[in-house]
Amino acid sequence: MTIELDMRSDIPIYVQIRDQIIKGIGAGMLKDGDALPTVRSLANDIGVNPMTVNKAYALLKQEGVIIADRRLGVKICLNADATEYTVKLKKQLQLLISEAMVYGIEEQQFLDICKEYYQMIRRKQKEGTIQTIPAVE
Amino acid sequence: MTIELDMRSDIPIYVQIRDQIIKGIGAGMLKDGDALPTVRSLANDIGVNPMTVNKAYALLKQEGVIIADRRLGVKICLNADATEYTVKLKKQLQLLISEAMVYGIEEQQFLDICKEYYQMIRRKQKEGTIQTIPAVE
Repeated sequence: MTIELDMRSDIPIYVQIRDQIIKGIGAGMLKDGDALPTVRSLANDIGVNPMTVNKAYALLKQEGVIIADRRLGVKICLNADATEYTVKLKKQLQLLISEAMVYGIEEQQFLDICKEYYQMIRRKQKEGTIQTIPAVE
Repeated sequence: MTIELDMRSDIPIYVQIRDQIIKGIGAGMLKDGDALPTVRSLANDIGVNPMTVNKAYALLKQEGVIIADRRLGVKICLNADATEYTVKLKKQLQLLISEAMVYGIEEQQFLDICKEYYQMIRRKQKEGTIQTIPAVE
């Protein structure tokens, strides 16, 4: 899995790294138990400060998506709390749907975009286009 | 329409003001042509620095949601470009759906949450629970 960063984006780099790892899990490229590179190694690969990768990993740890073990390194560990997340998701969807209505995007069109993504993810998972992120050193 | 701010949130205040106005439009509480309070008056009402309100209005102007006229004041003017917005929406939905998958939220549950909001908005619009934001001084 490749992490692509947009250095001209308003989104902080550590958030971009976190988002890409989340997308990787969503698309089945990263699975429960998979190892992630060490902070130093990933920072080196993508050309950012190790502190930035550290911040991204800290956020993922806080969200219950990864665990960091001094001996075993960083691993995907999906024991995230869906109850708390559902509250956050509902708030985000409320804002997104309000925005969509401002731009004249109706319910059916909105739902179609959602369905399209779910289909794309399922197709990717079936095709097995699963690449692995470089293993822990 | 009341603007509620969460001073302990990580989301910047000017983004919160912008989001609340977008939600107000989405929910039919603010309509095309409706007047918004002046920067000074809104800043006073909600107890924030006028610069913060100014930043929120500048963002909404840039997004094509309001126009500011020296004589007529600030008005909702919905001539936003849906083409550009759709690209942004698709990116945001891709991330949100990936996140939802991480937390084990399946397609049907996700779509149900979306439908629920559309229903709620339609109900509000029908009930005519439309309140107006204080008019331009």
